[in-house]
Order: sequence, then C-alpha cells, then structure tokens
Amino acid sequence: MKIRIINGPNLNLLGSREPGTYGTRSFDSFFMELQEKFPEVALDHFQSNIEGELIDALHASAGICDGIVLNAAAYTHTSVGLGDAVAAIQTPVVEVHISNTQAREPFRHVSYIAPHARGIITGFGLKSYELAIRSFL
Amino acid sequence: MKIRIINGPNLNLLGSREPGTYGTRSFDSFFMELQEKFPEVALDHFQSNIEGELIDALHASAGICDGIVLNAAAYTHTSVGLGDAVAAIQTPVVEVHISNTQAREPFRHVSYIAPHARGIITGFGLKSYELAIRSFL
Amino acid sequence: MKIRIINGPNLNLLGSREPGTYGTRSFDSFFMELQEKFPEVALDHFQSNIEGELIDALHASAGICDGIVLNAAAYTHTSVGLGDAVAAIQTPVVEVHISNTQAREPFRHVSYIAPHARGIITGFGLKSYELAIRSFL
Amino acid sequence: MKIRIINGPNLNLLGSREPGTYGTRSFDSFFMELQEKFPEVALDHFQSNIEGELIDALHASAGICDGIVLNAAAYTHTSVGLGDAVAAIQTPVVEVHISNTQAREPFRHVSYIAPHARGIITGFGLKSYELAIRSFL
Amino acid sequence: MKIRIINGPNLNLLGSREPGTYGTRSFDSFFMELQEKFPEVALDHFQSNIEGELIDALHASAGICDGIVLNAAAYTHTSVGLGDAVAAIQTPVVEVHISNTQAREPFRHVSYIAPHARGIITGFGLKSYELAIRSFL
Amino acid sequence: MKIRIINGPNLNLLGSREPGTYGTRSFDSFFMELQEKFPEVALDHFQSNIEGELIDALHASAGICDGIVLNAAAYTHTSVGLGDAVAAIQTPVVEVHISNTQAREPFRHVSYIAPHARGIITGFGLKSYELAIRSFL
Amino acid sequence: MKIRIINGPNLNLLGSREPGTYGTRSFDSFFMELQEKFPEVALDHFQSNIEGELIDALHASAGICDGIVLNAAAYTHTSVGLGDAVAAIQTPVVEVHISNTQAREPFRHVSYIAPHARGIITGFGLKSYELAIRSFL
Amino acid sequence: MKIRIINGPNLNLLGSREPGTYGTRSFDSFFMELQEKFPEVALDHFQSNIEGELIDALHASAGICDGIVLNAAAYTHTSVGLGDAVAAIQTPVVEVHISNTQAREPFRHVSYIAPHARGIITGFGLKSYELAIRSFL
Amino acid sequence: MKIRIINGPNLNLLGSREPGTYGTRSFDSFFMELQEKFPEVALDHFQSNIEGELIDALHASAGICDGIVLNAAAYTHTSVGLGDAVAAIQTPVVEVHISNTQAREPFRHVSYIAPHARGIITGFGLKSYELAIRSFL
Amino acid sequence: MKIRIINGPNLNLLGSREPGTYGTRSFDSFFMELQEKFPEVALDHFQSNIEGELIDALHASAGICDGIVLNAAAYTHTSVGLGDAVAAIQTPVVEVHISNTQAREPFRHVSYIAPHARGIITGFGLKSYELAIRSFL
Amino acid sequence: MKIRIINGPNLNLLGSREPGTYGTRSFDSFFMELQEKFPEVALDHFQSNIEGELIDALHASAGICDGIVLNAAAYTHTSVGLGDAVAAIQTPVVEVHISNTQAREPFRHVSYIAPHARGIITGFGLKSYELAIRSFL
Amino acid sequence: MKIRIINGPNLNLLGSREPGTYGTRSFDSFFMELQEKFPEVALDHFQSNIEGELIDALHASAGICDGIVLNAAAYTHTSVGLGDAVAAIQTPVVEVHISNTQAREPFRHVSYIAPHARGIITGFGLKSYELAIRSFL
Repeated sequence: MKIRIINGPNLNLLGSREPGTYGTRSFDSFFMELQEKFPEVALDHFQSNIEGELIDALHASAGICDGIVLNAAAYTHTSVGLGDAVAAIQTPVVEVHISNTQAREPFRHVSYIAPHARGIITGFGLKSYELAIRSFL
Repeated sequence: MKIRIINGPNLNLLGSREPGTYGTRSFDSFFMELQEKFPEVALDHFQSNIEGELIDALHASAGICDGIVLNAAAYTHTSVGLGDAVAAIQTPVVEVHISNTQAREPFRHVSYIAPHARGIITGFGLKSYELAIRSFL
Repeated sequence: MKIRIINGPNLNLLGSREPGTYGTRSFDSFFMELQEKFPEVALDHFQSNIEGELIDALHASAGICDGIVLNAAAYTHTSVGLGDAVAAIQTPVVEVHISNTQAREPFRHVSYIAPHARGIITGFGLKSYELAIRSFL
Repeated sequence: MKIRIINGPNLNLLGSREPGTYGTRSFDSFFMELQEKFPEVALDHFQSNIEGELIDALHASAGICDGIVLNAAAYTHTSVGLGDAVAAIQTPVVEVHISNTQAREPFRHVSYIAPHARGIITGFGLKSYELAIRSFL
Repeated sequence: MKIRIINGPNLNLLGSREPGTYGTRSFDSFFMELQEKFPEVALDHFQSNIEGELIDALHASAGICDGIVLNAAAYTHTSVGLGDAVAAIQTPVVEVHISNTQAREPFRHVSYIAPHARGIITGFGLKSYELAIRSFL
Repeated sequence: MKIRIINGPNLNLLGSREPGTYGTRSFDSFFMELQEKFPEVALDHFQSNIEGELIDALHASAGICDGIVLNAAAYTHTSVGLGDAVAAIQTPVVEVHISNTQAREPFRHVSYIAPHARGIITGFGLKSYELAIRSFL
Repeated sequence: MKIRIINGPNLNLLGSREPGTYGTRSFDSFFMELQEKFPEVALDHFQSNIEGELIDALHASAGICDGIVLNAAAYTHTSVGLGDAVAAIQTPVVEVHISNTQAREPFRHVSYIAPHARGIITGFGLKSYELAIRSFL
Repeated sequence: MKIRIINGPNLNLLGSREPGTYGTRSFDSFFMELQEKFPEVALDHFQSNIEGELIDALHASAGICDGIVLNAAAYTHTSVGLGDAVAAIQTPVVEVHISNTQAREPFRHVSYIAPHARGIITGFGLKSYELAIRSFL
Repeated sequence: MKIRIINGPNLNLLGSREPGTYGTRSFDSFFMELQEKFPEVALDHFQSNIEGELIDALHASAGICDGIVLNAAAYTHTSVGLGDAVAAIQTPVVEVHISNTQAREPFRHVSYIAPHARGIITGFGLKSYELAIRSFL
Repeated sequence: MKIRIINGPNLNLLGSREPGTYGTRSFDSFFMELQEKFPEVALDHFQSNIEGELIDALHASAGICDGIVLNAAAYTHTSVGLGDAVAAIQTPVVEVHISNTQAREPFRHVSYIAPHARGIITGFGLKSYELAIRSFL
Repeated sequence: MKIRIINGPNLNLLGSREPGTYGTRSFDSFFMELQEKFPEVALDHFQSNIEGELIDALHASAGICDGIVLNAAAYTHTSVGLGDAVAAIQTPVVEVHISNTQAREPFRHVSYIAPHARGIITGFGLKSYELAIRSFL
Repeated sequence: MKIRIINGPNLNLLGSREPGTYGTRSFDSFFMELQEKFPEVALDHFQSNIEGELIDALHASAGICDGIVLNAAAYTHTSVGLGDAVAAIQTPVVEVHISNTQAREPFRHVSYIAPHARGIITGFGLKSYELAIRSFL
C-alpha cells in the first residue's frame, strides 16, 4: 500500500514556527518515525508553499497512491482549487490538521476540502497523521 | 485504561435509520467487535436522546474514565450546554461523527463541542470510533 | 388507521397560557372532541417538555402508527435532533402550529422539521390538528 | 358559501411542468373533482401570471367571496404587493402550496403573504387545496 | 406646467384599506382638491396594480410631463425595473409615501427608486403629494 | 406659529463644503430668504457639531415651538440618542436632508430619527427646508 | 430553426435610455441586421415591461421555438417566477445581458434565471444576442 | 414570601467547574448562607441539566412562588422553549448570570429569556442571586 | 464609601419622557430617597446629553469614587468611547438600565460598556439603581 | 489576429475529471479543432495550476495578443490578484466557464474577474471558448 | 510648516490607561520630544473627548495648518460626522493609531475617516505620530 | 541594518498599470532613490506574482533581515497563508500599501496580514515604503 502525505504552506517551518500551537518537532524527524511505525505502507512526503504545486501533487498522485493524507494548512480555508482537485481525482484523500482549527479564528472553521474528503482528523498534533494512515488500513 | 463512548440523539436507530448515510449495522454489534479489537481498553457505552442526560453522562465520567468518545449527533450543532460540559470536566473528549458533516447541510458545519475537544474525527463511518480510541493509546 | 398526536414544550399549559395567542381551551377537552369527530381513526396523544422524549416518542411510533401529527412548538425552531428523528422514521409526519408562526418573531420563521415533513399546517388554531388528521384520510 | 381559488405564475402549466415536483394532473381536471367533493360550496378559479392581476383579483373578491384560497406560487416569495393586498381586504385568505417549499431553495422559505393569512397549508400536493377549503367549513 | 401622479399597487383601495395606516379618504376626492389648490398646474393621475404598466406610464410621461409624482407603494421595495425606468427617462421624478415607511417593517426601508429620484417625501399622509407638487414649482 | 430649524454636524460649512454635493450657498443667507418667504412663521435656527447639544436643543424646543425641522446630518445615521430625544418630546419633528442620502454610501441609508419623525423630506437641496416648513402650515 | 428573442422591462427604450450604458441603437434596427446575418434562422422578437407577459411568452414558445434568447433585464434579479418558467419549459433558454451586470450594483449580480439557463452571455453590448444565436447553431 | 431558585445545565458542578470563571464555592454552601441572609423569605432550589425539566419546574412554580430566580446557563442562549415558559406563567422571573456573559463568546450575548423577564442581573458572581432576591423585596 | 451615579442622554427628561416606558418620577426626587435609603454611602449624581462629558465624568471619578453606577442610555449601544473609558479607569462600574432593553429594538441589545463592567442590572425600573448600589456594599 | 486561451487550475484534467460536469474530451483535442475552425486567428494556449503563473501569463500577453480568453476556473471565485491583472493590462479579456457556475455552489457565483472583463460566457461546455473567440471577430 | 495633532477620546489618559496596550508615557512628555525632533515644523496639539469639538477643531484648522495628524481613537469606528469633516476641509489629514487596531475587536477594523484621509499609519505606538509628521515633509 | 522589501502580485507592472491609482514610476527607479536616501540601510527587493514564493521569501528572510517591508497587494485580502508566514517568523514585518485601500472596494478593507504586522502604512503612494523603512530606524 502506498500513501502520500502532502503538506501545505508554512508546514516546512514545523518545529520552529509558533511551538505553542504546532509543537517543537520537525516534520522530517516525525516522518521517519511514522515510516517505522507502518513498515507495511510505502510512505512519501511532499511539501510546498505554492497552492498550484499542491494541486499538481494531487493530480500526480492519482493512479500511483492508494491514499493521500492532505494537510493543506492555510489553503484549506481559501482554496476552491484544492477542493476541486480532491474532487477531480479518484484517490481517496483524508484531511488532517495538527492544531484544533475549530478553537482558532473563525476563518479557520471553513474548509473547501472537507466536503470532498473521505474523512477529517483535526487537533491531535502530529498524531493526526498517524490516525489518518490508520484510517486507510 | 477506561474509555466511555457517549452517543447522542437518534444514534439508537443506527442500522435502520437512513442507511445511505449511516450504514446498516447496529451500534451494539459494532461495539462488541470494537471491544474485541481493543482488549486492553475497558470500553462502555451510553446513549440517550436527551441533551441533559448526555450532560449528566459527561459529568459522571469525570474521574472514572481516562477518555470519552462523544458523538453528540444533532446536539453537536445546537448545544451550548454540551460544549460547556466538555469544558467543565478534566477528562479529555474526542468528538466523532459517522457521516461527513461538512458535506451536508450548513447547520451541520457548526460544532459547539469542537473548541473544547482534544480532537475531532469526522466522516469515516463507524471506523471514526475506532480511530478515536486509538487516539487515546 | 392509527394516528398519534405529539405535542411539545408548554403545550401542556394550553388553555391557561397566553390565551390571546393560544385560546382558552385545554388540549384534553379538544382531544376528546377530535376523537369523536374521527371515529374511524384510533387517536392517541403524547406531550412532553423534554426534547429527547419527543425524539423517543417519534421512534416509538414507527411501525405502530400510520401517521403522526407533530406540534413541536418551541423545539420546531431549534431542534436539529427532532428534524433528524422525523427523517429517520418511515411513518409520515405532518407538522402543525396553532398560531401563525410567520406573523410572530423571526426566530419562529425557521423550522428544522418542515423539510422532512409530509406537509405543514399553520395558524388555524386547534383546527390545525383536525386538518392534519384529514390529510391522512 | 362562496370560495375563490386564485393561482399564480406557472400554475397554468400544472400537469406538464416538472411532474416530479408538481404531479401530472391539470388543475382544471382537479378543480372539477374538487367542486364535486364540496357540493355545498360555490367554487370558482382564477389564474394569472401577472402579479398585478392577482392583486386585482384579490380586491375583486372582497365582499363577494367568503374565503380565498391563494397559491401565489413564485410571487409568494417576492411580492410585497400581494401581501399588502391580502392585508387590505377583509375576506380571509388561506395560503397554499403544492410542493414542500421548506424543502426547496432558501428563497422559497420566505413568504410575504403568510403574516397576513388566516392559515398556511404546505406540501400536500393538490390535496392542499382541499384542506384549505375544509378550513373554511 | 404638467405634472403626472402615478400610483402603484393597492392605492386604488385608498380610503377603505387599513384606515389606521392610510386614512379614510379616497384618492379621487383628494385629487380634485389638489387640482383646485394648484390651478396653474395641469395634473393628471394614473393608477395600476401591474408593475409593468407603471413602467409603461413612466415611459409615456417622458417628453409630455414636466414632473412625475410617483408613489410606487409595495413595488418601491422590490422593483429594480421601476428604478431603471426612473433612471431611463429625463423627466424628474419625486418619490412619495403616505405612511412613514421607516417606521414599518424592515423590508419597507429599502427603495430601488430613491437613488434615481430628484427627492423623496415620506410620511405626511396625503399631504405628501401636495409637498411633492410644490417641489416642482 | 413658531418653527425651529436645528442643523447638525458640518452644516456650519454649508456653501464652502463639497459644493458638488451641498451647493455654494451659506445657510445664513438662505435662512433670511426663508424667513421672508414665510412672514407668518417665527423661524429660528440652531446649529451644533455636538450630538448632545442637538439633544439639548430638541429638549429646549418642547413647549416653545410648534414644529421642528431637523437636519441631523451625519448623526442621523448613528445617533440612537437623537432618535430617543425626538421620541421623548411632544413637538412634531420633520427630518430633512439636502442631498439624496439614498444615492450615497449605504451607511447613509439608515436613519435612527425617521421612525419617530412626522415625515421625512430628502434630496431637494435647500428647498427641503422650505417644503418642511410648508408641511406644518 | 426557429429562435425567439424575448426582451424585458425598459428594453423598448434601447437607443434612447442611458446611452453610456446601453448604446444609441434601437433594438428594431439591430434586429433587422441580425435577421440578415442569420438567414437560415427564423427569428422573432417579443418585448414587454410586464413580468407576467414575459412568463406567458416563455410558455407560448414551448413546442414552437427551438431556442429562446432571453434578456429579462431588471426582472433577472428579482423574478422567481421567470426562473420557474424557464425551468418549466423544455425549450432551451440562453440568458443575455447587454451591459456587464457584474460591474454594476450588487443587486444586479444575482440571477434567478441563470441556474435554469443553458448558458449565459453578458456584457458584449448588442453582440450578446448574436453570440446567443450562434450558441444554438 | 416564597422565592424559588432554578439553576440550569452544568451549575451542579459549581465550585469545581472552571473556577477562574465561576469561583470555587458550591451552590449548596452558598444557598445556606443566602437563606440565613433572608430569614423572611422561604427559599428553595432546583437544578437540572435537562431543558424540559427546567420548563416543568417553571410551570410547577406558578401559583406557588411569589418570584423565580432563573439562571438558565447555557440554555439561556438557545432555548426558545424556556423563553416561552417564562412568558406563559404569571409568576415574575428574574434572570441571573454568575459570569459576565457579555464579555464572553458572541453566542452568549443572546438571551431568549430576557425579553420576558422582569429584570436581568449579570456578572456579579454568586452575588447576582442575592441582588435578584432583593429585587423582589 | 463614595458612589457616583452617571446618567446619559435624555435621562434629564425622566418623569416626563414616555412614561409608559420610563415611569412618571423625576430622577431628582428619586435620588433624594435613594440617599436616605443608604445613609452610609456618599452618593452624587451627574447627567449629560454629551457623550464626551460622560467620558470626562468617568475619568474624573477615578481615584475619588469607590464605585460608579452608569446608565449610559442611548450611548450604551453606540459608544465605543464610553466602553474604552470604563476599561481605562480602575474604579468599578456597574451598568444599569431602567427599561428592559432586551425587550425593545434590536439595536438596544448591544452594549459597548457591558464587557468592561463589573456587572449589569437591567429592567427593574428605578430600582435598578438601588440594586447597583447594593452590589457595592 | 492573435488570441490566447489561458486555462486555470484542474483544467489540465479535462476529459478525465468529473465527466458529468466537464465532459469527456481533452482540451488539446478540442484546441486543434478550434484552430481549424478559425484559420484566420492565431490561437495559442497556456494552462497552469499556479495562480501567479496565470497572472504572469496575462502580463506577458499584453502587447502581443489582440484578445485573451480566460477560464480561471476555481481562481475566478477567490483571486483578487487575477482580477487586478485583468484590470492592469490593456488587452481585452473574455471570461469563460465550461459549466454553469450559477447552478453550482454559492461560492462559484462570485467572480473577481468579471467586473474587469469585456464580457462573460458561461455554461455552454467547450463551446464557450468558441463563442468567446467569435466575440473578438 | 504648521501641523496640528488632534487627539480623540480617552487619549488624555495616555500613560495611565491600559499600559499594556498604550504604553506608560503621557502625550505631553512625548509632544515636547516630538517638537524637538522637528524644529522646522510648528506643531500644536488639541485633545477632546467630545466628538463635536473634534469636528470643530478640524474646521478651525482649515486655512491655518498645512496638515493634520488625527487620532480619533474610539470615534474612528463610529463617527460619520468626523469622516464628513475630513472630507469637507481642504487641509490634508493623516489618520494615526497607537495600537494595532486590526489585531483588536472587529468593531475597531472599521474606519469612517480612512476613505477621506491622505494616508493611514497604524500600530507603531507613539512613533505613529512621528511617521505621520514625516509624511508631510 | 538590513531591510528587505517584498512586493506581491501585479506590482511588477508599477508605472504602467492603472497610473491613476498607482502612479507612473517603476519600482526599480524608485528603489534606487530609496537606497540613496537610506545609505545606512542595506536594502534589497523581491517581487513575485506567486503567493507561495512570497511565503518562501518571508521564510528566507528570517535570521537574515532586521526588518521586512511587505506590500502583498491583492494577496493581502485573501491569503491566510501569508498571514501565517508573518506570524511564524521572528523578523518584524511592516505592511504597506501604495493606494488608500480603505477608499476602494470593500474586499480590500480586509487584511489577513495586519493582525501579525508590527504596523501598517497605507495610502501615501510610494512614500509608504519610505515611511516603513523609517519605522525601523
């Protein structure tokens, strides 16, 4: 089974950005641990701050991955285009968030991706990714 | 470890109610399977259609359970009182939904519970409960 | 033919509550007359001020009644759970209101039940119940 | 007793227009049956697609009819003028709708006529007219 | 000088309609008095309940009248078309209202005509017409 | 007959302020002409840029004037207190505006004074004051 | 092939009305040229300022025309009834606008017709009609 | 004089729930002190987490108590039914809140009870109850 | 103990203004009685119709009074500046209202002062002032 | 004559993406046919999923193309930047949409590009592009 | 060059009011330093808590000052009258704010002055005044 | 001291784009002058039309620059991601705008960046950049 993790804007700063909200661990170090925890899954990881590259990455995953774990970060709340991309491909997408977006500013309560996602996992810190992978097993 | 599942209004009909949205399996049959899957966790289950009994159940869980999995169903979207109860107790609460509430009517996009929950899991069918339990492990 | 009338909050006060809006007749006295008017129909009547008991009553009517006449009163305008219950059962439900809710406060112009009801009858005083029963004949 | 049925825009197409929503029966054929069902009532029927002609028809009914059954169709949701006309005349008006307008687009949830109507009957198909006539008896 | 008074829906009922709001005098009797009061002005009067006929009347006045006094009544609040007609002709239009529309329902606080009118006179009863005529002198 | 004109903020600049909107004539010069036009009326005039002084002026007019012509200018759209003052005194108040406020920014479409005014005259330039005085005759 | 052009309120003034927005050419002169440009199409043209006559015209076109080009002008933005008429007939309707309604007042950004139209062509001046006819070829 | 205190959802947790907002004292201990402070008043106290039981309690107080002190807590902001119950009974009701609800989330700024209450006392901690009792003396 | 009562716009009219809403007693007569009732408190009283003078009065009370009872009347609902002043001084402020503002127009349901007040007392007539003073004891 | 077609996000998937909404034909195959249909026009085509590259493409077309056909897809509804780019260049831009965006989700009813476009063509499938090109001839 | 600084409500408390938001320095001490920093500019300073006095001050500056630095504080967000005054005079006005109003309550995100200001400087503490003066040099 | 200027979409067109709004000078020519004016500051400049590249540029500036001057242009109003990036880095960011965005379309009145900026400077033309640099000195 092949699962791709796609991370959106500012998530490259994970570990250094607002540690109170996002924790102090970098995604790379977490990713290695995650791969070890799921030896039966081929994981890979893509990050971009560019909305259109995330759309490209979703397109490119179609037919190659069995599932996508998408943390579109800030674009979650503004990108009709990412929502359209999730709707356009057959591969199931699980939306994840590290922080509890429902406990933050109102503009973070809206998701253009959610209506097209297989499911949504929000607020468990980095554990949100692990639960998303489990949802595919 | 002790985890209580609290289910809200109309979930007693699971298996017979709108099978296109909620599936055809009763919660009791699912609950047994769930307990088998997590032998190390003491699970129990409470359901009520009465908002105040759900509040009572949250209060009663404090100090007894290590975690609560709460599917408040329709009350999710209207009950300030349930949100207050989750905020009032120390036991961590994970909010779950069987269907993808973000893909349904706009009034289901609001949750008074979410801001006080440890995390939210939405749209994986009955598997949402399983993922919620795993989030406590 | 079996038809159940389910009345919601404050309707137990009928006859004494705000007679300018709701009239001076108790529901019990009206109910007797109603049963006489429809000898071919087996009528019964349930009232509760508790939202969840009304949901229970709707569930319990499924498979037993041929039709339900529901005056959810104040819960009409706030209860997603009652709307879900009406959607969840097969028995057809007719929504009734004694007063003209459209001529009162704006929050009474919304109904969570109406989209799932077979029909809605509003503003004819107690005669609304009679018309609702006739709609099943 | 004399009761006038006033039908608004597009209702002349009844029977051919969107049969899934409005049924396959023409209003003329239904009207004949209705007259037979209520031999003690003198029924007549007026239809126009022109808002102002419906206002004229309401004015002209005053003092002649004992009651009016008004299905203003699309004008229900936009015509302040029809609402004013209903308020301006003494003859009681019952508002009816064939389809369940509360289960359709949000702009159909508003009625400028309802606050001035004696009562409202919605969603029973053509039977809505029959119930409206009974409400006058 | 030639001034045309154009009256909209339900104003034909003046004198009999809701006397508490609109007074007990018919427009015809008032019109005669008005003509006497302004012997130097050629007044005429058109009334229709049909929105499009009011638009026609505005078109027909262009080039013939020196001013138009328009009480569009209910259409004031809903008719983009009447507003467009006022904007389309060169003849200056004064908007009048008998009752104080700002003290009534919120939907009467909006006017599609006002932005294109030379001026607006509201709430002086029938005297509003007299003031409007004086505004042209 | 005694009529007081009360002018609100920035109207002291009349004649120099935004001549495209408000004209080039000072209020003092206009006031003299106005007094000449109505020799039978004792006119006086008060202007202040201070909301509370306008309220004071309204209070002070009660029992002394037969009518008040109030152009509250910018305070029209924000002052609950001026509206309360108009409601609190018995002397009838006519609201006037020089420019067509309905053709300007949306925040100028609201008036807290209008619901309590005897009538409203808008958009006739300085002639609005003249028409207001005539409305009292 | 038979195509009917239906024009709504104020379009009879084309050529004289607000030439900055709508141009200086009358529709009749344009229509002749249009017919010459499409000799293979039988064109006809109907205009009314009355909403209900436009609804009648749509009904009357059903079964007779292969396509309808509808410029409902001001009624586009307010007429639920015209939208219902377009939905009620089988003949495909193309919505056109001469001016760019999206660059004008916000109330012109809404169309009750568009959801039921085969397509919408906006802002090309009179050329919008030509493009609409081409869309049927 | 007999006064009943009715407390709504989560107030049974007083003293342990969010002490920063609600203080550390249990209501029972406070109630005893309160009774001592008002020896001339017969006080009693009812608490429930169930909306309908609070409605029942209001009904049951009618004719028995001279006044009701109601802290409906979370239901204040969502319960049309409790507002209706307060309107339905003759006994005067004073609404109280421990915390300053106007300084908390916007959904706590709305009260369905307030329009029907004799008065409202907000934000004085437990002293709000004492002031409410004094208001009846 | 020193407590200052600060009254806002139109409250100088108390006793003559809208007696149905505000009663028939002047504030001066009430104030004398109030001082007698609380001999241990040094009361004084300031009233102004000018928003900025009320702000000045709040500033001037700081360090001199132990508490302020503020009835900002109409300014309650519009004055960010008064709210800022209450927040800026250390002296605790209790907001009072004579009438039940929650039962009046929607614009009276908003208070810019409440979030910064120690507590709010609404709707008890002049008794609201007495309760406010007691809240400081 | 030189015309550039600029396609936005997800349009590279045309033919495979949601065929019920967008059809089964790839844009490349359609483009070839289009070029054949307009031999007198030099057509080219650019597609990107990246908002900023679409802005770059608009800038780069200025002075080179005689017209631009822009289907900004999802960015239509969210991109102030694309709207600014259309306004910034002199080359006329025609906005096109394949599907009827007015019949889809409300967030697709908004266009930041339309106010600056020469015209808008919506809902004719791929034929929308053809009509757009004709609009330039 | 002559520049006037006009400060609005509560700014007389600077240095003592909410030091976390506004700092601990009085405006007088800052003003002296400011004058020293700009020896080539004749600075003066006016403060009032009264909206109308600020309007007066703006009027009085016209023709005397070369520029005005206006911190209208709370009135920024509510005063149509101050905005009108800025528009009415020829002297350029720069709007300043000490705190970052965009990071505070939503009602502070609106400015009635900004659309008429030459520029706006927000959030630099007292340095905002210095930058405003530099903008005139 | 090192300060980076980051310019967003369409600002590469400065000098040619809508000169009425943005002036006729290119940014490069202005930048040279700016560097000369501040010889003690090491300035550099980055422009991109791609939202994600602007986010990248903000990340890359962290630890390298002492301050950032950010004109995010159109992305100001729509980019949650840019706001998140400003919040995520330690380097202080000053938001600038050339035109007075508060005097333009309402969607330009919102800024996702402002709440996280050290300060905001709006409407001084290119001088806004100069003032922003001074704010760091």
